[in-house]
Amino acid sequence: MIDFSLTEEQRAVRQTAREFAENEIEPVAREHEESGEWPREVWETAVDAGLIGVSIPEEYGGAGMGQIEASIFAEEIARADAGMLAAIGTEFGTRMIAEYGTEAQKEWILTGITSGELIGALGNTEPDHGSDAASIETTAEKDGDEYVIDGVKTFITHGSIADYVLTMCRTGVEGHAGISAIVVETDRDGFEVESNIHKMGWNASDTAQLRYDGVRVPEENLVGYEDAGFYQLMEFFEEERVGIAAQALGIAQRCLDEAVEYVGERTQFDRKLEEFQAVQHTLADMAVKVENARRLTYDAAARIDRDEKPTKLASMAKLYASEVAEEVASDAMQLHGGNGYTRDYPVERQYRHAKLYQIGEGASAIQRNIIAKELLDL
Amino acid sequence: MIDFSLTEEQRAVRQTAREFAENEIEPVAREHEESGEWPREVWETAVDAGLIGVSIPEEYGGAGMGQIEASIFAEEIARADAGMLAAIGTEFGTRMIAEYGTEAQKEWILTGITSGELIGALGNTEPDHGSDAASIETTAEKDGDEYVIDGVKTFITHGSIADYVLTMCRTGVEGHAGISAIVVETDRDGFEVESNIHKMGWNASDTAQLRYDGVRVPEENLVGYEDAGFYQLMEFFEEERVGIAAQALGIAQRCLDEAVEYVGERTQFDRKLEEFQAVQHTLADMAVKVENARRLTYDAAARIDRDEKPTKLASMAKLYASEVAEEVASDAMQLHGGNGYTRDYPVERQYRHAKLYQIGEGASAIQRNIIAKELLDL
Amino acid sequence: MIDFSLTEEQRAVRQTAREFAENEIEPVAREHEESGEWPREVWETAVDAGLIGVSIPEEYGGAGMGQIEASIFAEEIARADAGMLAAIGTEFGTRMIAEYGTEAQKEWILTGITSGELIGALGNTEPDHGSDAASIETTAEKDGDEYVIDGVKTFITHGSIADYVLTMCRTGVEGHAGISAIVVETDRDGFEVESNIHKMGWNASDTAQLRYDGVRVPEENLVGYEDAGFYQLMEFFEEERVGIAAQALGIAQRCLDEAVEYVGERTQFDRKLEEFQAVQHTLADMAVKVENARRLTYDAAARIDRDEKPTKLASMAKLYASEVAEEVASDAMQLHGGNGYTRDYPVERQYRHAKLYQIGEGASAIQRNIIAKELLDL
Amino acid sequence: MIDFSLTEEQRAVRQTAREFAENEIEPVAREHEESGEWPREVWETAVDAGLIGVSIPEEYGGAGMGQIEASIFAEEIARADAGMLAAIGTEFGTRMIAEYGTEAQKEWILTGITSGELIGALGNTEPDHGSDAASIETTAEKDGDEYVIDGVKTFITHGSIADYVLTMCRTGVEGHAGISAIVVETDRDGFEVESNIHKMGWNASDTAQLRYDGVRVPEENLVGYEDAGFYQLMEFFEEERVGIAAQALGIAQRCLDEAVEYVGERTQFDRKLEEFQAVQHTLADMAVKVENARRLTYDAAARIDRDEKPTKLASMAKLYASEVAEEVASDAMQLHGGNGYTRDYPVERQYRHAKLYQIGEGASAIQRNIIAKELLDL
Repeated sequence: MIDFSLTEEQRAVRQTAREFAENEIEPVAREHEESGEWPREVWETAVDAGLIGVSIPEEYGGAGMGQIEASIFAEEIARADAGMLAAIGTEFGTRMIAEYGTEAQKEWILTGITSGELIGALGNTEPDHGSDAASIETTAEKDGDEYVIDGVKTFITHGSIADYVLTMCRTGVEGHAGISAIVVETDRDGFEVESNIHKMGWNASDTAQLRYDGVRVPEENLVGYEDAGFYQLMEFFEEERVGIAAQALGIAQRCLDEAVEYVGERTQFDRKLEEFQAVQHTLADMAVKVENARRLTYDAAARIDRDEKPTKLASMAKLYASEVAEEVASDAMQLHGGNGYTRDYPVERQYRHAKLYQIGEGASAIQRNIIAKELLDL
Repeated sequence: MIDFSLTEEQRAVRQTAREFAENEIEPVAREHEESGEWPREVWETAVDAGLIGVSIPEEYGGAGMGQIEASIFAEEIARADAGMLAAIGTEFGTRMIAEYGTEAQKEWILTGITSGELIGALGNTEPDHGSDAASIETTAEKDGDEYVIDGVKTFITHGSIADYVLTMCRTGVEGHAGISAIVVETDRDGFEVESNIHKMGWNASDTAQLRYDGVRVPEENLVGYEDAGFYQLMEFFEEERVGIAAQALGIAQRCLDEAVEYVGERTQFDRKLEEFQAVQHTLADMAVKVENARRLTYDAAARIDRDEKPTKLASMAKLYASEVAEEVASDAMQLHGGNGYTRDYPVERQYRHAKLYQIGEGASAIQRNIIAKELLDL
Repeated sequence: MIDFSLTEEQRAVRQTAREFAENEIEPVAREHEESGEWPREVWETAVDAGLIGVSIPEEYGGAGMGQIEASIFAEEIARADAGMLAAIGTEFGTRMIAEYGTEAQKEWILTGITSGELIGALGNTEPDHGSDAASIETTAEKDGDEYVIDGVKTFITHGSIADYVLTMCRTGVEGHAGISAIVVETDRDGFEVESNIHKMGWNASDTAQLRYDGVRVPEENLVGYEDAGFYQLMEFFEEERVGIAAQALGIAQRCLDEAVEYVGERTQFDRKLEEFQAVQHTLADMAVKVENARRLTYDAAARIDRDEKPTKLASMAKLYASEVAEEVASDAMQLHGGNGYTRDYPVERQYRHAKLYQIGEGASAIQRNIIAKELLDL
Repeated sequence: MIDFSLTEEQRAVRQTAREFAENEIEPVAREHEESGEWPREVWETAVDAGLIGVSIPEEYGGAGMGQIEASIFAEEIARADAGMLAAIGTEFGTRMIAEYGTEAQKEWILTGITSGELIGALGNTEPDHGSDAASIETTAEKDGDEYVIDGVKTFITHGSIADYVLTMCRTGVEGHAGISAIVVETDRDGFEVESNIHKMGWNASDTAQLRYDGVRVPEENLVGYEDAGFYQLMEFFEEERVGIAAQALGIAQRCLDEAVEYVGERTQFDRKLEEFQAVQHTLADMAVKVENARRLTYDAAARIDRDEKPTKLASMAKLYASEVAEEVASDAMQLHGGNGYTRDYPVERQYRHAKLYQIGEGASAIQRNIIAKELLDL
């Protein structure tokens, strides 16, 4: 039954998220984007509000949101500031722990996260293997009942503030089938934050390069099955992509909203900007893009919530929403004229955030590969 | 509740439409496109199959389809050939008659259409007033209990084969508020098919320019209220636009399907075309566009069926689906190489059909105007 | 010295071509496009005017134009009708004959063409090898002092009216290095026009599929070196591509001109179309595209005339001009509204012609491959 | 005579500029972009190298470059860093002074600039009048032999470091015909740097908002004619736009070069990035855009040097080059993957610089208005 309206419960999630965004995120977003300082106080407020770990099951203190709710949450926070969302985000590997972790791991990590005692990170990307996750070179060698881990991970969100990093390590053969997911506490000997990565945007969120130099962790730190880590991670690719799409959608929606407001207030040549046909047509095209991105994203999310595995649709949502975020942000900045290029207007940081979405979590080219393979049954 | 799946009933409509398209339309589409001859035999088969007047209420012999069902029907037939759909289409004013007509008018016209006794047309566009329907100059002057009609109408689908033309005439003041809808039988004195219009595509469908030279019709031929014709017509703009969007979607879907099939069979440089990354990426982008067009169209249709009036969304669907139809058709032809440029492959006529959709029923610029006005509350 | 102005001589070529186009081509272009009949009378007029074989050296009766002049000529005739240009065109292999032919071959063929005694064709493309010219399967086996030719050629311009076909045949090893160019007279036994190819546009020009069934020709019909035919042909790829770019440019320029004229005359909503900002901005973007296409094309032509081999630039000109032709034609039709979709306005056939240019003479994907290889030194 | 090659002298300019860029700009560009500190030491080096005031006549110590040379210079420096170019740039009103200034003004200002004694700024834009220069509200009232100036100017390059600001003031009627250009020394009473403007990019260059509160300057500070300031400024619009186009071209060229280099070095999925067809095609399209931008820009510059007034072409160059800069920068960042999003790679700052070019010196919409008016003879 074709229906694109939200349930009462979903609307409530949006309302909660929007209020948190307006009251807690928006007022400090510019400042953290500029300083690059992790917004500890916002994180603490989010912990208190029960908004850390929205996808984590309620039994571990999370909000237990399904994919649509989590997407709406992500969209609304990203609408305020996507870097701040990343800064208080927790989805970096927690889905895998919730699915494959032992009860002890779940108590430790999931409850730790939702209670504000732990900050976690996911260590997957390596300097020479961005899109090609199957080629990672970080090794975990079994030595008695310990793993000894050596390697370098990069672009790790929360990398320098995390208490642990769920680290993807090679334990077996080359390729997909020899990778394991291992929790590495960051106070272990041999673990080092090699460098902080300065980015074009998303600066409220910490990004680091990490070095593992013979780091030893007990074998209990393995999550799920040995050599199955890639598959365990891949199982949530659809969720990750839809989540990313939702954030890009939030950016696009915000840029559209800012543009609509700006052209309604600003005058040039004795006419409001909104009266110029070229302005109107630009806004119309922006709005169509936002609506398309929303429908792909929500539809993919709904299918995940119905336990379908919408691989193609999730990739479409990620691809399209991220492209649209850049285009709409660019148009919004253009409609703001010189003001839009200054750090005094939110479109400036939205424009910088937007571009990340085409790159991260499987760049656009990867998504196109996936979509084509599904289309062509390759 | 976000849901993008079709009901069983809707799937049945698709199945019926697709079978009719494959069995009755596809085999003769090329021939009628080439000859420009109206496919009387297909129309007769459609009458027998109960597929003439799908939106007409069942009490008048129609299929009584709602907007989603009618959209799916239109999509499927246009997937075979949009010109053939137009050739057997009946929505040209019948909605207005169903809503505003007298019982006698409904019996006469709606039942006439569904039973195959009548072919109708809608006479709105004039040579100097394409997008600007409020400026029409065809006049209907009251003379006793008759209207005397003078003017010229152009781009009239079914113009030279229709038994009647529901003609928009100026009966009152300038602008929107002085227009009436009057049924003009085509055998009345003074009515003349001035010329047939040869088009780039859509040639199975008859398009004509009509001249009214003092044509007299009884006042009973007025549909609805005098001077309210424009508003009566406008009331169904959303339906019209969504219907057009659905056709454009059908064209785009067909072109995508043809391209997928072609690149899976054709070899160049000793590799199947489908193995080239550039081919894959083109297909991925085509598929995203088709999915976007589908969501906008079906969502708008669903809202119409729920008695919302989705003005902005219907314009978005019309704008986007029609743009996408051209783009996807062009890409599909490109993927066919030289073959695609020949009349031997369906993409050739789909490419020619596609362009019409950005022009007819409110050109893209008009849709952008509408969307912007809604966005900006102008 | 950056200079983009034409010499007096080049302006004269443009003037001559434009007058021929306006007086001889334009009046009958629509008719031949519709009928698909080859315009013999226009060809005869062109022979008399010395406009058949513009690139053929003067000693063989040609106009001896360099690349810029020939490009301007092609642009101007295509501005009237690209199908008509193809119909009176002669560049199909004559460059190779002028460069590699024996004196006897030149006298026979080049003089034959310019005097109107001969019509020639180039037989390269095969049904299964569109873009991949190195894989052709038509064979020429040496038997005594004759070649015996077997195979099928398709998309052959002038195929059914030609007196000879310069046929690319495999005489040696697989790949590029085993192909020879052989003149096959069309009255030889075993030569057959298998079918005429009906195209979306370019219908004034004859396109056919040809079958060679043991056709015997004397060894004197070999042009240049055995097994070197591919290289002999490839030597003129830059010329061919620039010529194609020039035609696409002519189409784009014409569409822009038609649109400018139309919007200056046509009124909607009580304003001239040209006063709408959206119309203005569309025209501005169209004009930028045309100017870009012109600069790439003329610059590439100038470098050819200076005996540089501008492989990258020629591919850029071909790629860009052909893309722009479609886009500008589409915009021009859009600005014409419903009228543009009818066969009464020249944009209708220009739109159909335009698409061919992305497909023929190395499709866009091939050009992108070439440009990239040059950029990347691959 | 179509020719797109540079003269020996122009090549020498490119060589000089490129060496300066590589040796003096590139090594410190990142640092100044980050700190926002004006690069005084680079400016001093440029003074010593005779590269301050490249368009200023040689008799006042400038390099006396024509438009092509100045464009090549701008392109090359912007290729390293456009913000740094602005930081050492001097074209802000000096053309007007060279044309309309008294000998005393020229000695004072032009010689002052080239000798490194003066830094100048142009004060035109106001907070409420970005694109609409004819509506400025800053007033200069005559009081005896002084002007008393009141108003606010914004987006003023060099605003907080300048020794003088050539200030556009209303001295007469509303509109274009009541504006004068007056030199205001920044140590005058009542002159105040109200705020520094923090921008997305271009941060090596100082941008400020300036307040004039009853600033008195002698009437000798008027440049040219009273009330003719707008026209005096407008006379150099073509030069300004071509200069901007050249900078945007430099950005685009750099991004292309960086991308070509990166994909030749970086490996994914065991293949160099450059081997992926999607990468190749992206690069091909980027390269076409760069070549188009170059031809429009150089051609417009050449026409300026020949004393034509290429209004349409200059607007086309500005419009197209600035659009292309954003697109090519975005593609280049995409090809860099995650690395491109970090401040460690030059594409990151090029991406931020690029967007300014569509906004400043007449936003894209203004350029489209101009082009259309020229096309349509409005």
